[in-house]
Amino acid sequence: MHYQSILQRVYDDAAGLLGEGKVADYIPALGRIPPDKLGIALHGLDGLDAAVGDANERFSIQSVSKLFSLTLAMRTVGEDLWKRLDREPSGNAFNSLTHLETERGIPRNPFINAGAICVADVLLSALGDVKRELRQFVSELCGEAVSYQAEVAESERRTGFRNAALANFLKSFGNLHNDVDAVLDVYFHQCALAMSCQELARAAAFLANDGISPADGLPVVTERQARRINSLMLTCGTYDAAGEFAFRVGLPCKSGVGGGIVAVVPDTLCVAVWSPALGPSGNSVAGFRALECFVGETGLSVF
Amino acid sequence: MHYQSILQRVYDDAAGLLGEGKVADYIPALGRIPPDKLGIALHGLDGLDAAVGDANERFSIQSVSKLFSLTLAMRTVGEDLWKRLDREPSGNAFNSLTHLETERGIPRNPFINAGAICVADVLLSALGDVKRELRQFVSELCGEAVSYQAEVAESERRTGFRNAALANFLKSFGNLHNDVDAVLDVYFHQCALAMSCQELARAAAFLANDGISPADGLPVVTERQARRINSLMLTCGTYDAAGEFAFRVGLPCKSGVGGGIVAVVPDTLCVAVWSPALGPSGNSVAGFRALECFVGETGLSVF
Amino acid sequence: MHYQSILQRVYDDAAGLLGEGKVADYIPALGRIPPDKLGIALHGLDGLDAAVGDANERFSIQSVSKLFSLTLAMRTVGEDLWKRLDREPSGNAFNSLTHLETERGIPRNPFINAGAICVADVLLSALGDVKRELRQFVSELCGEAVSYQAEVAESERRTGFRNAALANFLKSFGNLHNDVDAVLDVYFHQCALAMSCQELARAAAFLANDGISPADGLPVVTERQARRINSLMLTCGTYDAAGEFAFRVGLPCKSGVGGGIVAVVPDTLCVAVWSPALGPSGNSVAGFRALECFVGETGLSVF
Amino acid sequence: MHYQSILQRVYDDAAGLLGEGKVADYIPALGRIPPDKLGIALHGLDGLDAAVGDANERFSIQSVSKLFSLTLAMRTVGEDLWKRLDREPSGNAFNSLTHLETERGIPRNPFINAGAICVADVLLSALGDVKRELRQFVSELCGEAVSYQAEVAESERRTGFRNAALANFLKSFGNLHNDVDAVLDVYFHQCALAMSCQELARAAAFLANDGISPADGLPVVTERQARRINSLMLTCGTYDAAGEFAFRVGLPCKSGVGGGIVAVVPDTLCVAVWSPALGPSGNSVAGFRALECFVGETGLSVF
Repeated sequence: MHYQSILQRVYDDAAGLLGEGKVADYIPALGRIPPDKLGIALHGLDGLDAAVGDANERFSIQSVSKLFSLTLAMRTVGEDLWKRLDREPSGNAFNSLTHLETERGIPRNPFINAGAICVADVLLSALGDVKRELRQFVSELCGEAVSYQAEVAESERRTGFRNAALANFLKSFGNLHNDVDAVLDVYFHQCALAMSCQELARAAAFLANDGISPADGLPVVTERQARRINSLMLTCGTYDAAGEFAFRVGLPCKSGVGGGIVAVVPDTLCVAVWSPALGPSGNSVAGFRALECFVGETGLSVF
Repeated sequence: MHYQSILQRVYDDAAGLLGEGKVADYIPALGRIPPDKLGIALHGLDGLDAAVGDANERFSIQSVSKLFSLTLAMRTVGEDLWKRLDREPSGNAFNSLTHLETERGIPRNPFINAGAICVADVLLSALGDVKRELRQFVSELCGEAVSYQAEVAESERRTGFRNAALANFLKSFGNLHNDVDAVLDVYFHQCALAMSCQELARAAAFLANDGISPADGLPVVTERQARRINSLMLTCGTYDAAGEFAFRVGLPCKSGVGGGIVAVVPDTLCVAVWSPALGPSGNSVAGFRALECFVGETGLSVF
Repeated sequence: MHYQSILQRVYDDAAGLLGEGKVADYIPALGRIPPDKLGIALHGLDGLDAAVGDANERFSIQSVSKLFSLTLAMRTVGEDLWKRLDREPSGNAFNSLTHLETERGIPRNPFINAGAICVADVLLSALGDVKRELRQFVSELCGEAVSYQAEVAESERRTGFRNAALANFLKSFGNLHNDVDAVLDVYFHQCALAMSCQELARAAAFLANDGISPADGLPVVTERQARRINSLMLTCGTYDAAGEFAFRVGLPCKSGVGGGIVAVVPDTLCVAVWSPALGPSGNSVAGFRALECFVGETGLSVF
Repeated sequence: MHYQSILQRVYDDAAGLLGEGKVADYIPALGRIPPDKLGIALHGLDGLDAAVGDANERFSIQSVSKLFSLTLAMRTVGEDLWKRLDREPSGNAFNSLTHLETERGIPRNPFINAGAICVADVLLSALGDVKRELRQFVSELCGEAVSYQAEVAESERRTGFRNAALANFLKSFGNLHNDVDAVLDVYFHQCALAMSCQELARAAAFLANDGISPADGLPVVTERQARRINSLMLTCGTYDAAGEFAFRVGLPCKSGVGGGIVAVVPDTLCVAVWSPALGPSGNSVAGFRALECFVGETGLSVF
């Protein structure tokens, strides 16, 4: 397929939705991003790259980072991770505390906030300097030196009371082994990673390749672990809209409130989109449409 | 691939789990099924059939029927169906009333009981004689005359107080338009359909074929509707174990407490398994294993 | 105290609220009651009666009947009753199913609908003809032959899907021993009892008198049981407004959506009010005010 | 009545339960209290005092302090307090976060932890040095200089993750105006107040006296506010056992996990009990029995 011209058509279609939705504004650093940004990039297992729009501009990846922290945790501690959290759809909001209470501090999956905080705690116990290790891990995955946006991390910390509630709640059930503030510091930093669509598409390419980095042929995770991550993305990766994404996109996806979404086409490629304005489910409006259109153009849904 | 020999290896592997789990015994007609039954059948889009074990023995398909009632409703009323129910994973037990209360009578998806009862109500409004229409529809799909097990339907009715609670609860929110008993009569009958693995694999083959029946080339549903059903099966088709199925099997599946599971390999084939003993999540123990093994042997996961 | 003139002042004050609130209209027989009705009656342990306004007009007592069915059940089966239901405030709506699910079919208290349905089931197991026995019991308590409003009972039955859901839900947990329809028939009839304020004040007088009927000196329930009922009325007797009633009235009360409320002043008297227009909590607006004013005039709060 | 001999009989009866229950051990300072302590004291509005057992030994009053912080908040900010929290029974555990999520950060009442933390926040906004003001307020109420047990406050802080979760959760809803740590510091200190039964009985005596301190005849709160507090104690003062206390004791009570309970007999007296071993509901086993026995001996229930 001629991906560059496909991406252009996808861009033209999705650009029609610019102006809809609302940029996340719970912290100033996100709120001031122009809502009309739109970037799309793909990275094929054959080495092919294609990109349109703002595909090279870095943005705050926010919850997309949960994908990388989960991957790092799985390759660091293996199956032990699942003693600490479950792997099923939650059916509640991403920041809900309700299930956590009835399920005695075991988060439903690693992509709701409670789960990602738990993953950060696991990493903190296993690695020395998680912030450095995670940044380095993601940099190696995408082949570029990514960095944290300090202002974003600091704003998240200052306003992240719901996450502080979740972390303390986990701790009250014995499911947070490190100091609450130390875990939240890791968590707020991972949310503040800045990457471009091109970097995201490359960084997640191992998920389309049975766990092996297409860049160097080395395993990032096992084939089985890659399948686990993909299945989690499909069932839990896009907040309360997982069912809708599964239908309209039909690919494992992970989204963030910064407006980024990364999607995996097994055995073929990864595609990343970015547009800051969000719909009611917290997913990028134009990004969601771009992925839907991409699948329509290429037939690359898993279904 | 030489599917017959693959199925034989899958059978041998899964048979090792016979003896584990527990046959559903909430009604006598299910409770007396020998727990060591195991059948596997597949039907390829190329017309190929393969089968091992008890693949030709009919069993009570129970919740697998939700797949067929949903399909019939989608082709009968189209998009209007989604005014009555949602399409997201529930995160609660299949027979839970909790979400229904906070969400004002809108079931989370058509595969939890409340959703399937709502679908039965939609069918009752749209078709004259739903029991006849549904049986005929499924018979046409699989090319055999299937039938209801009257004893099962009657037992379900006599003991189905949780379902009666759900139906009345829906009615109290105005989301059941017909008489409660009439709707439950349809619902209990659809659960009492008896089919074999071979019949199930054929009946669901249109889902692997973009909505078109491979038998006669006629559309059962649109391509888009088929994708909707497949995505629902993957995210919601196996009770509380959807995440685990997505990982270990990686295919759209629909299971029932009779021990049957049907799985779709898009563009390729359908496979159906049956073994009556259930695990804690209400899914067939040996059936689940057989599907996992089948995907391992063939690499036919969507991930 | 000169109660007649006190009641007149209370009436004048509460009449100022006529015009506020809304008559229950989920069944026609309730919806057509004029909203400007207001009656107040008291019956002292010394035999004194006082009454103003529409105190002699019979109305549908609805949930006030839960007081009498509970009393009849306590005197019939004694402590065994509490194997079937709990005695704590629910914190949820009177017709909620949520607690019932997490608490495995044990209603929180006998004044939420689930609890009252369970009490009706207990009575049905213990007595032959509950409808007759209950009517006779209440008639003896108030010294007048009360009766069921057949139209109300029939309307409740035709529209009572939430109650049917609760009954079936209880049955699914094994906490309903009789046929669902038979239990609901009892329940819908008890809600359809018609009594006047004067009759209500007399019927509940034993609760102010340590369980002994002031009319004939015979025990209705034990002193301990009377205390149990009074404490339940105070903590759970007025739907979601129990805390507000405890503060503003400070007496054990039981209310109904027909607009009636009966209140107990231990060792002194019973007072009953009726005005059909309800506030957001489902309690009579003018009735609530009348009780608050009565306590203000007399100082007869328990606090 | 000859209260001294009554208290002796009550003591003898309740002492039979010493050995049952379990001392709270979530912090060492509580865990090492001997479980066989038992003290009872009463203070009459006529100035009469009576006491038996360990009635003069100070203990950690824990949640009984919520009574004093609520009183201080009501007299400081008046009705504005109720913009921040509700006044109804919760139906959930005292430290549950569930209701807080569905009710958008408004605690059900001031006696669950979320409510008491909210009250502490209100005090922090209104008063300069809350710890000093509260200690001084309680000291004036009981006529003795009470003090904080620094070790208890520090242990609560080190282990109080559930409370930190609640405070952060309130903050995330905008219902905590001050710094989380500052509010928790106040809250953990108030829980660490040490008082004896005699001091408690005197400190709460204004609640039996329409809000007026019997010691100096000055108003602590208005009559209406006193009634509000008493009604809250009766409906919400004893964790999940409010219904059981209302029945078996029938007095407004407030309990704490230190094993103390204070009870109000309106217009007559206050009685305070202390025994550290707790039952399943978190209330003192021997203390509960002592109150039940006291009411049985004196007939001083409100019902």
